[in-house]
Amino acid sequence: MGEEAELSFQPDDVTTRASVGETVLSIASEAGVGIESLCGGEGICGTCPVDIQGEPDCLSTVSKVEETILTEDELAAGRRLSCRVEIEAAGSVDIIVPPVSQVTGGIVLTDGRSLEIDLNPAVSNHRVLIDPPSLADNRADRERLIDALAAEYNLDIDAIDHQVHQSLPSTLRNGDDGEHIELTATVYRGGEILDVHPGSLPSMYGLAVDIGTTTVAVYLIDLNTGAVETVSAQLNPQRHAGEDIMSRMRYCRREEDGRERLQRDIITGVNDAIEEVVGTAGIDRQAIYEAVFVGNTAMHHLFLGYDPDYVAGSPYIPARQASVTLKARELGIDIHPAGYLHWLPVSGGWVGPDKVSVLLASGHYRDEAMTVCIDIGTNGEISVGNATQTWTTSAPAGPALEGAELTDGVRAQPGAIERVSVDPESHEVSVTTIDDEPAIGICGSGVIDALAQLFLAGIVDRRGTFAIDPGAHPRLRTNADGEVEFVVQRGDAADEEDIVLTQNDIRDVQMAKAAIQAGTRVLLDELGVDTIDRLVIAGGFGNYIDPSSAVTIGLYPEVDHDSITQLGNGAGVGAQLALLDVDARQEAGRIVEQVDYYEIAGTDRFEAAFLRAMYLPHQVFDTYPGVKADLESIRTPIDVEQPRES
Amino acid sequence: MGEEAELSFQPDDVTTRASVGETVLSIASEAGVGIESLCGGEGICGTCPVDIQGEPDCLSTVSKVEETILTEDELAAGRRLSCRVEIEAAGSVDIIVPPVSQVTGGIVLTDGRSLEIDLNPAVSNHRVLIDPPSLADNRADRERLIDALAAEYNLDIDAIDHQVHQSLPSTLRNGDDGEHIELTATVYRGGEILDVHPGSLPSMYGLAVDIGTTTVAVYLIDLNTGAVETVSAQLNPQRHAGEDIMSRMRYCRREEDGRERLQRDIITGVNDAIEEVVGTAGIDRQAIYEAVFVGNTAMHHLFLGYDPDYVAGSPYIPARQASVTLKARELGIDIHPAGYLHWLPVSGGWVGPDKVSVLLASGHYRDEAMTVCIDIGTNGEISVGNATQTWTTSAPAGPALEGAELTDGVRAQPGAIERVSVDPESHEVSVTTIDDEPAIGICGSGVIDALAQLFLAGIVDRRGTFAIDPGAHPRLRTNADGEVEFVVQRGDAADEEDIVLTQNDIRDVQMAKAAIQAGTRVLLDELGVDTIDRLVIAGGFGNYIDPSSAVTIGLYPEVDHDSITQLGNGAGVGAQLALLDVDARQEAGRIVEQVDYYEIAGTDRFEAAFLRAMYLPHQVFDTYPGVKADLESIRTPIDVEQPRES
Repeated sequence: MGEEAELSFQPDDVTTRASVGETVLSIASEAGVGIESLCGGEGICGTCPVDIQGEPDCLSTVSKVEETILTEDELAAGRRLSCRVEIEAAGSVDIIVPPVSQVTGGIVLTDGRSLEIDLNPAVSNHRVLIDPPSLADNRADRERLIDALAAEYNLDIDAIDHQVHQSLPSTLRNGDDGEHIELTATVYRGGEILDVHPGSLPSMYGLAVDIGTTTVAVYLIDLNTGAVETVSAQLNPQRHAGEDIMSRMRYCRREEDGRERLQRDIITGVNDAIEEVVGTAGIDRQAIYEAVFVGNTAMHHLFLGYDPDYVAGSPYIPARQASVTLKARELGIDIHPAGYLHWLPVSGGWVGPDKVSVLLASGHYRDEAMTVCIDIGTNGEISVGNATQTWTTSAPAGPALEGAELTDGVRAQPGAIERVSVDPESHEVSVTTIDDEPAIGICGSGVIDALAQLFLAGIVDRRGTFAIDPGAHPRLRTNADGEVEFVVQRGDAADEEDIVLTQNDIRDVQMAKAAIQAGTRVLLDELGVDTIDRLVIAGGFGNYIDPSSAVTIGLYPEVDHDSITQLGNGAGVGAQLALLDVDARQEAGRIVEQVDYYEIAGTDRFEAAFLRAMYLPHQVFDTYPGVKADLESIRTPIDVEQPRES
Repeated sequence: MGEEAELSFQPDDVTTRASVGETVLSIASEAGVGIESLCGGEGICGTCPVDIQGEPDCLSTVSKVEETILTEDELAAGRRLSCRVEIEAAGSVDIIVPPVSQVTGGIVLTDGRSLEIDLNPAVSNHRVLIDPPSLADNRADRERLIDALAAEYNLDIDAIDHQVHQSLPSTLRNGDDGEHIELTATVYRGGEILDVHPGSLPSMYGLAVDIGTTTVAVYLIDLNTGAVETVSAQLNPQRHAGEDIMSRMRYCRREEDGRERLQRDIITGVNDAIEEVVGTAGIDRQAIYEAVFVGNTAMHHLFLGYDPDYVAGSPYIPARQASVTLKARELGIDIHPAGYLHWLPVSGGWVGPDKVSVLLASGHYRDEAMTVCIDIGTNGEISVGNATQTWTTSAPAGPALEGAELTDGVRAQPGAIERVSVDPESHEVSVTTIDDEPAIGICGSGVIDALAQLFLAGIVDRRGTFAIDPGAHPRLRTNADGEVEFVVQRGDAADEEDIVLTQNDIRDVQMAKAAIQAGTRVLLDELGVDTIDRLVIAGGFGNYIDPSSAVTIGLYPEVDHDSITQLGNGAGVGAQLALLDVDARQEAGRIVEQVDYYEIAGTDRFEAAFLRAMYLPHQVFDTYPGVKADLESIRTPIDVEQPRES
């Protein structure tokens, strides 16, 4: 016992005893406390620092290596390299393992959902100490560096980026202190040197980029920790050529250099977002070594400069299915010029990298549970299935569910009505606006609420038609065009107009929900499945939809509330996964192979399913027993009878 | 016999008999007549045309496939696809296999020497017929093409050049005749698609580029035949920064952006030469898919933009040893932008890709014969050895052997004195000038002749000193500087000056030859070798040197005249080999591994060898028994005694 010391490790709260002569690193390892150690305890890499609390007198003195690698301030604060500190006598030591040296086996993404992932990015930093060249050892600069990386890290480098190589001779000599050359190489997929710095371990970043038809979202991510540093969301600068994909396709056909123009637009847009994130985070854009991209097939084609014409019409052939890996400088994306751009693969036709990314994030194609996954947007991206079989398709929903193109529809923004409730007894209406600002219009989630509530209150019938005469309800009226409309919110002052939902608005919402519902039904029929175990809602927009309202109008299939998962921006999450773990890219390739694409456009099956889905919640009411029960408990029986088969 | 036809094939001059029903292609194959057939006789590739002489009536009529692939003019002239022509009856057929369809197992390079090589370039064209896409077969464009190349040619494509991919959708549809899509893919090393053309089999070209300090030589080569179409030799535009390598290095250090400027200069120079060769040959530069580069280490570094500073001084460390492969557009070389640039590797220090290329061309490091190979230039590149061991080095000869920096020295050009003889009895001098133009000066080969002849005539002694008093010979005199000089050629008219060789000129030539001779000796000593089997002279300049004169002054070791090989521009030949046969690039890598570089600069061994080599032909006269015998047969004994050991 006289020859043993007691060590306690935080934050793991592990206490253990160890003999004189052992290092803190090996003691921690035996006790199951994870401390990073890239060089395996050789005193080279500097990745294993720990903070010693107080001044225990049972430890070895500060070594030469620690003096070299750690700063004076760090040493003064008790920081040591755990591989260099030995137990020299009996005693008691309190040790904190700081985040920088904690082994990151799995981390948690915190943007609305938690996903355990392995931190295994394509890019890694490797610090080496190299012997300076001499007449006796006159290996060339490149070969000297490659040999050192092979010896220290078992890396098999077969390329060095050409532009980086141009400055290698001077970088190498800048790292020379006379005795050793200290360099850090930034290596891509273990095989290509993207950058070389004199000295040790600089930080490195990556981008996850989600290019939507409307919005471009850029996430800046620390590749050492997996943390999202900051996010930029900007409007897609291609919007001058039209709000929707088809307008942009027509623009490409119509305008000379239209395709080149739209490519330049989106590249400029991404670069603007990059400028914003590096500014916010206060980092050098040269420290960003990779960007992973997702988006729909049209955005994918327009970004990469592929002609999108042939994917726009039958038989919907994309220029490419496989993932794309390109040097950033090939397209002028403003990260480190030797860095890489990676697009996830296209599954088929309109099921693009965005959908593959959502599948990657949801993972339901690997599960036993029979799952429906819906990403609501102008095109509803739907996948249905489990590990046995999964089908995916794209349903032409149009913009109504996002609140666009309705009489008083607005996109989600401060002042947009996002929640609507109608008291089934009193028919009193109450609304909530985003940020509690004065109401300026109604956005998607509000529209879905409003329709569901009007239906449950008996004001709208199962055909989506106003069931009460205008005048019989204080908020129902006939407008100047002779159309019946419901006043969702009365203008407070003389100069504020009422916010209404017209009969035509309801038709637009019905068609949009019917497209998604029919797409889901067709896939369920294809699989021969009646009941589902799980509903996953992907897409930033889906986050804001009240699931009960969505089930009530039939946008979602009916499942237990507990079986609904909100994935947040699934496409963005998938892009982050692919950025942080190269194995997820392999997995994306497997998704393309395993998940089948079902083209519903123009098929009789879809048309028939669409007509049945125009009803609230569906022509076959028994497929929504919960909604039926709700309605029966609230409303008079007259409204709940089965509509005639059309 | 009634069912057999007699076929004769030219130019192989083979006659054979064949049965009805056999195709000309299979008959040729059985008879050992090589006809190209990329698709294996499937009527797809169009690579097997033959020319039928006369109009024999025993052959099958022109097939649909032949009508598609061959032009009307070709058909009218008797051209047929040999895989489609069948023997239908007894008869006699005379067939010419045109060069385009002759199997090129080995070809002969004709630029001054003959080398059998396998035609196996990095780039190959592959014609495919593809089924058009449909809803049932909705593979993406890239995957459709890749699948077809895999099925037809067993190619494992894993990349398609990004810029080429951008136009793939429209190219694919341009090749669509409704039933099939006919495309030709240009493929790099069996794995990357560099270009796609609608239709069949375009031609393809490559460049072999030899970047010398003085001259840039660009060879345009047909990659289908291996033939050199045309050559451009231009002055290196970097010359404004100095004639020699060291001046250019100093320029890089002295001038801001000096390195970038010299890189731009040489790229512009190469592009100018490319413009010339495509103009002369009348081809599209887009049909050039690869350029293989050789040059000394400094030219290599300056072309690629590597800092040459550290290779200039001890310990002579190049930025890179391994070969370089880069997209042409990365450096702005004006060939097909998706095409590749390939630099042969650096062996070490000053033994650059040019020397590796010479070794590739000479191949002596693989032979049993003990060989000395010398490439004479401002730096003499020397290799000595055989398959057991080969050493290589670089000797600082300076420009004197090329005629530069001597009193009346000029570079080889019309009017330069290239041959000099001095009658040993009468001391009469006769000279020959290039193109028989009036003499304007004396170039390298003339200087070497002059010194050898003056030595054999007893006018210069073994120390390189004039052995006769000025005035004792009609052409010897003391000039205005008090220096003794020999008048090689008297000015004919009053305004033409005499062309002379001064004592200092002779010293310069002695030092230059001594550097090369000492470099050779050091390597021979290192190998422990006294006698050599073979002498290979590489380099355009070496072609013009009289081997007897070079042996007489000791520039070359003494070997039988039959054992001397002139390799011509060995560096250019090696570049052509590497362009036409990818295996030669592997071989270049083996040269770097197998051939050892011996750094002679600053070593005592070289200094000692250099002093001994200042004598004509060498301090140890017995190492030149033939020269000694010549001298004894010509001159008085007084001159041939051993000089005192220094």
